Amino acid sequence: MVPAALARRLDIDLPVIQAPMAGVQGSALAIAVSNAGGLGSLPGAMLDREGLRRELAAIRAGTQQPFNVNFFCHAEPVHDPAREWAWRELLAPYHREFGIDPAAVAGGSSRRPFDDAIADVVEPFRPPVVSFHFGLPPQPLLARVKSWGSFVVSTATTVEEALWLEAHGADAVIAQGLEAGGHRGHFLSQDVTLQAGTFALVPRIADAVRIPVIAAGGIADRRSVAAAFALGASAVQLGTAYLLCPEATTSALHRAALTSGAASRTALTNLFSGGLARGIVNRLMREIGPIQPLAPPFPLASTALAPLRSAAERAGSADFSPLWAGQAGKACRQVDAATLTRDLL
Amino acid sequence: MVPAALARRLDIDLPVIQAPMAGVQGSALAIAVSNAGGLGSLPGAMLDREGLRRELAAIRAGTQQPFNVNFFCHAEPVHDPAREWAWRELLAPYHREFGIDPAAVAGGSSRRPFDDAIADVVEPFRPPVVSFHFGLPPQPLLARVKSWGSFVVSTATTVEEALWLEAHGADAVIAQGLEAGGHRGHFLSQDVTLQAGTFALVPRIADAVRIPVIAAGGIADRRSVAAAFALGASAVQLGTAYLLCPEATTSALHRAALTSGAASRTALTNLFSGGLARGIVNRLMREIGPIQPLAPPFPLASTALAPLRSAAERAGSADFSPLWAGQAGKACRQVDAATLTRDLL
Repeated sequence: MVPAALARRLDIDLPVIQAPMAGVQGSALAIAVSNAGGLGSLPGAMLDREGLRRELAAIRAGTQQPFNVNFFCHAEPVHDPAREWAWRELLAPYHREFGIDPAAVAGGSSRRPFDDAIADVVEPFRPPVVSFHFGLPPQPLLARVKSWGSFVVSTATTVEEALWLEAHGADAVIAQGLEAGGHRGHFLSQDVTLQAGTFALVPRIADAVRIPVIAAGGIADRRSVAAAFALGASAVQLGTAYLLCPEATTSALHRAALTSGAASRTALTNLFSGGLARGIVNRLMREIGPIQPLAPPFPLASTALAPLRSAAERAGSADFSPLWAGQAGKACRQVDAATLTRDLL
Repeated sequence: MVPAALARRLDIDLPVIQAPMAGVQGSALAIAVSNAGGLGSLPGAMLDREGLRRELAAIRAGTQQPFNVNFFCHAEPVHDPAREWAWRELLAPYHREFGIDPAAVAGGSSRRPFDDAIADVVEPFRPPVVSFHFGLPPQPLLARVKSWGSFVVSTATTVEEALWLEAHGADAVIAQGLEAGGHRGHFLSQDVTLQAGTFALVPRIADAVRIPVIAAGGIADRRSVAAAFALGASAVQLGTAYLLCPEATTSALHRAALTSGAASRTALTNLFSGGLARGIVNRLMREIGPIQPLAPPFPLASTALAPLRSAAERAGSADFSPLWAGQAGKACRQVDAATLTRDLL
């Protein structure tokens, strides 16, 4: 499908999707992008029901244009007390450094997978697009989403995942290259050696599926958008590029990292959520290694690290914060979201 | 520089460079690509003086078209007997499995850096293009190469390396994305977190330097060539794509891996030479991990592994062989080099 055709199908002017980024944006960024002619996205995974309702209402009030709301479809993690204990032992020197009582470290999940209770909140808003990360929800729930008329998108990191998504009802697939910032969407295999850069991934997925392909990973400007279309993509999805926009809620520490030399060094890490995600290398990643088998499974590691992260941030340090960014982070511009969106084509 | 301009400068019809690949090709592949209108390359790093002379003579006899000869500029490694002993201990179970006497494992280098003795062999052939990996030779030696009229190219994996190469006399720079197969060309820093995919790397290098940029990594077909040009490249360099050509000397085991499902799984590894290179994951990489701090420094690990590799290959196994391939390896076609080259544009 040529980019203009997918844009027409989605009723947007520009085949540009702003990637949903939980923790660094809400409705304001989505509204700005949708009003500029792209597809704004609301990350739903870290919102409670009331928060989700409020944000969806804000979008409906802020724009007449189509928008996307994103949810996670991860399996609920199994608690493993021995592993969680070992993880706290590994972090103990840091807890001591900041005077944190390890007993105060909470368990519990920071993100819940999409379910019927969330669908109850979403349904009245009938979002034109619903995107998922980590696969798709169970068929009855997916059928419910489609019954609203929502166009359903999910992320593939391999050809196998793209074929699976097409077979299970996705209307389009995001081909997420290894350059991408934030959480990788792999769900069929945890083997990182299967994951490829955008250049290698997009044409292979475009050859394999009949549904439209949305390219993600390392896309930052007009040149990379044109390149993605040359590779066979029908649209592009950009996240990192929007992190410095005033409409994003990116923290001052995160913004400082993005505009510093540090942004050149990114790595996949599981320390901050338990899931593999690309971020700017910081002290915790350097000192205990970016990938730690002891880190609690997704999304439990977030709560385990929360007190340390808060204490460090209060002290003005991003040493224990996830600084999600893709490999094109150095190309980030401090510009409003509408200008950024329109400059991409 | 637009692709047509660099092609004119190099006096070639097509802005396509066949990547020099030591160990899997000689003059035959270079001749075929040059005669098809691209720039064929001879890998010089593993040839002795007599072999190099013979191959250069074969190219001069086989084509009237421009060609490239490639050399390495690595620092000579320092022998560390303790580390080499520990490495042999790590390999001891494999040596026992194949009945290899560890005392028979040779030391010594399999590849020598470019020097005046090699330049003496090359000079009479005045190659139109000379490319280097791991930086550039010392200035007097580089001046000697340029005095022949050779156009000098080297590889950058970061913006900093591209700027260094431009400042030290390179006429063009290869931007090597993380998708690329074989040896990574990094020479200013060993930090892998600095290395980015082709999508993120090419535009940033194109913005930073005034000399032409040649994109490499994940390029396999007409779409990825067009995408590389969209990103700001003036030419493309492809290696993996040529591995199944009849003119390549790729082993039967290597060809079998490339045409199997195994080609989907690649990783950076230092096990086979001591330098970081991307190859298809095989038994040795799985069992001791793809990156081993104990592996002797580049290029000593090659000779340390040689008896094991030979014994396994004699038994029909690629378990201990370097199976260099990029992330687009699955896109490899069994087609002659001229057809492949012409099909790229």
